[in-house]
Amino acid sequence: MSATARTSPTRMPEKMRDDRAGVTRLIADARVGHVAFVHEGAPRVMPIAIVADGDDVLLHGSTGSPWLRLLATGVPVSVAVTAVDALVVARSAFESSMHYRSAVLFGRCAPVDPVEKAAALDRITEALIPGRVSELRPHRSKELAATLLLRLGVEEWSYRVSDGWPEDDDADVAGPAWAGVLPMRKGFAEAIPTFDLREGIPVPASVRGLLAP
Amino acid sequence: MSATARTSPTRMPEKMRDDRAGVTRLIADARVGHVAFVHEGAPRVMPIAIVADGDDVLLHGSTGSPWLRLLATGVPVSVAVTAVDALVVARSAFESSMHYRSAVLFGRCAPVDPVEKAAALDRITEALIPGRVSELRPHRSKELAATLLLRLGVEEWSYRVSDGWPEDDDADVAGPAWAGVLPMRKGFAEAIPTFDLREGIPVPASVRGLLAP
Repeated sequence: MSATARTSPTRMPEKMRDDRAGVTRLIADARVGHVAFVHEGAPRVMPIAIVADGDDVLLHGSTGSPWLRLLATGVPVSVAVTAVDALVVARSAFESSMHYRSAVLFGRCAPVDPVEKAAALDRITEALIPGRVSELRPHRSKELAATLLLRLGVEEWSYRVSDGWPEDDDADVAGPAWAGVLPMRKGFAEAIPTFDLREGIPVPASVRGLLAP
Repeated sequence: MSATARTSPTRMPEKMRDDRAGVTRLIADARVGHVAFVHEGAPRVMPIAIVADGDDVLLHGSTGSPWLRLLATGVPVSVAVTAVDALVVARSAFESSMHYRSAVLFGRCAPVDPVEKAAALDRITEALIPGRVSELRPHRSKELAATLLLRLGVEEWSYRVSDGWPEDDDADVAGPAWAGVLPMRKGFAEAIPTFDLREGIPVPASVRGLLAP
């Protein structure tokens, strides 16, 4: 997919990446995207769990959500997928910044075909908690009926990565200020059993996998 | 500020919080918000660093950014501020979810008065790296001139928090599946000095403060 007016860089083209696989990894890392749409002429944005399915993106929620129902009608959407990976502490405020990965997707959503719904929901579960589906009972039909599952067809995308060192000028490098990068912690700290977990049920393999370093 | 048609809950009103201080803490924790606006009738969304200043929000970037320049004209914006705090692993896929804090702000931006610009930029630095301003040289006038600094006046907001245990039904609680909560790691893992840091410059107090547990 080539750059268009919507996806051509207006600034800092050196941060643009033509890396669709990188976007897919970013979606997995971010877990949540921000979906913007227009309602009565005004902008709206909402966070929602996102999972890549090939070059598409799956979104889901309650059939009771008026915003999801609006997205299901195929209105144009813009979806930001962002990971903040580090603080960049430069020798000046001006050069201080963040390491980030930022994808912006453009497209339209459509409901997933009912016959594919259970399998697509399983893909969502497996993306968020790998190995979990085989540990769970099957979906109930009333659960499937209560879930609105949308597929975003990505018509255009851009991807921008900032991952460099501070870019202080020579005068600041010669000065007294410290500079460096502070990576953000990622992943999960621990698995806290729920209050009414029955005795003798061990932490399952899926959860142990998420806790791995 | 009271709820309006834009901020009244359409679903799960029990998750709504009338907690402006909570929104301010969320902005500090999230560091980055997602700003949605309408351009030529279509939705656009972009990530940007955000800092609370009283009930307003400060945004900044390059004067070369056409999107920031559009925001500076006072077009309506919607800003999502989101923190994902944990994965909620329930005994079914249907009840599995996330702990999150989600604020959606509505308003318009205007450029910060030039005489207030340096002080407002210092507030941004202090919010992101507390104590950093006193460790740095003053702004250069060309840096101030190259920075577009916007103040978002928040006209309406909503705040939603999900922080409970999995809500499995009795049949699932009696079943074999594990359930619990996996808090996400937060904060910074380490401070990596930049490649050309001069010898003898220690990690400053501001950065040590960010690394504190």
